[in-house]
Amino acid sequence: MEFLNKYHDELARGLEESVGVRQPDRLYEPVRYILSIGGKRIRPALTLMVCDFLSGDYKKALPAALAVEMFHNFSLMHDDIMDEAPLRRGKQSVHEKWDLNTAILSGDAMLILAYRLFEGYDPEKFRDLAKLFSETALQVCEGQQLDIDFESRDDVEVVEYLKMIEQKTAVLLGAAMEMGAIVAQASEAQKRVVYEFGKNLGIAFQLQDDYLDVFGDPETFGKQVGGDIIANKKTYLYLMALKKGSPDHQKELAHLFSISPSDSRDKIKRVEEIFVESGSAEATSLAIENYSNKAFAIIDKMNVSDQKKALFIKFGQDLMERKF
Amino acid sequence: MEFLNKYHDELARGLEESVGVRQPDRLYEPVRYILSIGGKRIRPALTLMVCDFLSGDYKKALPAALAVEMFHNFSLMHDDIMDEAPLRRGKQSVHEKWDLNTAILSGDAMLILAYRLFEGYDPEKFRDLAKLFSETALQVCEGQQLDIDFESRDDVEVVEYLKMIEQKTAVLLGAAMEMGAIVAQASEAQKRVVYEFGKNLGIAFQLQDDYLDVFGDPETFGKQVGGDIIANKKTYLYLMALKKGSPDHQKELAHLFSISPSDSRDKIKRVEEIFVESGSAEATSLAIENYSNKAFAIIDKMNVSDQKKALFIKFGQDLMERKF
Repeated sequence: MEFLNKYHDELARGLEESVGVRQPDRLYEPVRYILSIGGKRIRPALTLMVCDFLSGDYKKALPAALAVEMFHNFSLMHDDIMDEAPLRRGKQSVHEKWDLNTAILSGDAMLILAYRLFEGYDPEKFRDLAKLFSETALQVCEGQQLDIDFESRDDVEVVEYLKMIEQKTAVLLGAAMEMGAIVAQASEAQKRVVYEFGKNLGIAFQLQDDYLDVFGDPETFGKQVGGDIIANKKTYLYLMALKKGSPDHQKELAHLFSISPSDSRDKIKRVEEIFVESGSAEATSLAIENYSNKAFAIIDKMNVSDQKKALFIKFGQDLMERKF
Repeated sequence: MEFLNKYHDELARGLEESVGVRQPDRLYEPVRYILSIGGKRIRPALTLMVCDFLSGDYKKALPAALAVEMFHNFSLMHDDIMDEAPLRRGKQSVHEKWDLNTAILSGDAMLILAYRLFEGYDPEKFRDLAKLFSETALQVCEGQQLDIDFESRDDVEVVEYLKMIEQKTAVLLGAAMEMGAIVAQASEAQKRVVYEFGKNLGIAFQLQDDYLDVFGDPETFGKQVGGDIIANKKTYLYLMALKKGSPDHQKELAHLFSISPSDSRDKIKRVEEIFVESGSAEATSLAIENYSNKAFAIIDKMNVSDQKKALFIKFGQDLMERKF
């Protein structure tokens, strides 16, 4: 999708400038670092695309798009501490490269910097953007907390899991798109449309992430296939297998997710089989399809040309096919 | 000061309500906890007082006052992690009572909750409040980073130290007061007056905190007298003694601040002597007096009755005399 390139150039420039010349370096260097080590810039691209298609001018949505990306990277910096992740995008995470305190404090500064990016808008837009941002940011925190809570619970329901990924991942895609609509001064109805598109696409994307972790192509998935199984992570596949599987499957699966063998190949193989035999793999595929179809159906309600609707769907499909 | 009681009742009620009924509990319980274990509520009281005196209605400043207190407690929650402080206001700090991840994530949520408290204001006030809030919050982060940086530097200048305490402590007092003036729709000049009053009072307060740590009355200071000396903390007294002291004093002081004897009584006694002999104690007293006098002189430019000016000065004096 050719037109995304112009967005990416603007975003790269904007991110560099957004930290400005503030001191001390020790606070802002980690901010520049995490913003510089890449990322696909999916969320801010969606903000720009919505504003572009609704108003013909994507540049006025640039500060809002940068705020979304700044927030996303804030949440990565703090999540990496919580997950004790040594790497982020193949590079050292901030708490590894510097230390815990740096990752906490520089993360805090990023959350504040995100709010500051809205300051150039007129007061009404500023308030609309900041309100949506705060509500979304709080939901992301809530989703992260639910994710942590689920680790120590053995009675997590599928519906709770869906709520968790909606909050932790999907609402930010919805909000990124709605911000583009706010800047374009779209109607409330149109704002809802793009928000729901982004949210449903985000849920589909996250469920597919669970699916590809087990059934994905190691060449293209980008992460270690089987990683969730090794980590005993209660994904949609796992919860659905517990729900749909026979009592024997349930028992065996619960056992397999209580052990951490040094050689995990047999465990991964057996869990894969149970996911298939229990009908969980099929149910997960179906859920992915349902959420992405829901997203694609919603886009029809947008007040834009069919050609532009098709571009939103193409963006969604490319995202689902991990083409970015 | 009788009239402060009505503020405190409103603030207590407001803080309880400000978290609302959001879930999950594991995220919001630590927020309720840190807000419930006390604190003197100096900052939000200043917000209410300014709005009260300038407009006659303090209640409309309540959300802004709560935002200031929410932010202050956010910064305590994260600072306690960085300082590895087991206690806060005599109770377990959040990372001790729960764990590191909880203190990070619940702190993040508090920073967002603080911004949300401005949402009830009209768009112009919302933007003015949020802008001042963001700039101040960023300065507090910068001050905290400078404080951390100073620990590993042996060339900290007095002027850098003043900048650090201004950012880490004083600007929030200034901003708390300016927010009251924003809500009261005061002129830009009046906003500057209250901001400068709060900022100078904040610097005086922090310098006095350094002074009382060494020369304070153990009965009334509230913290362990000599605590900064035991911790080898480079306070204003220390930096001033290094600057004003004889070469022998400088050498001895540098040595004393490089050791951590198990019985610290001799060290504390000798450091106290050097602070006095070098002229640092006197210089510090003078600086405290200068900053508080500056604050009290500024208040004369407020467009309020002499009686109200006197109440601001009384508040400042009570604060300096640790009467709260």
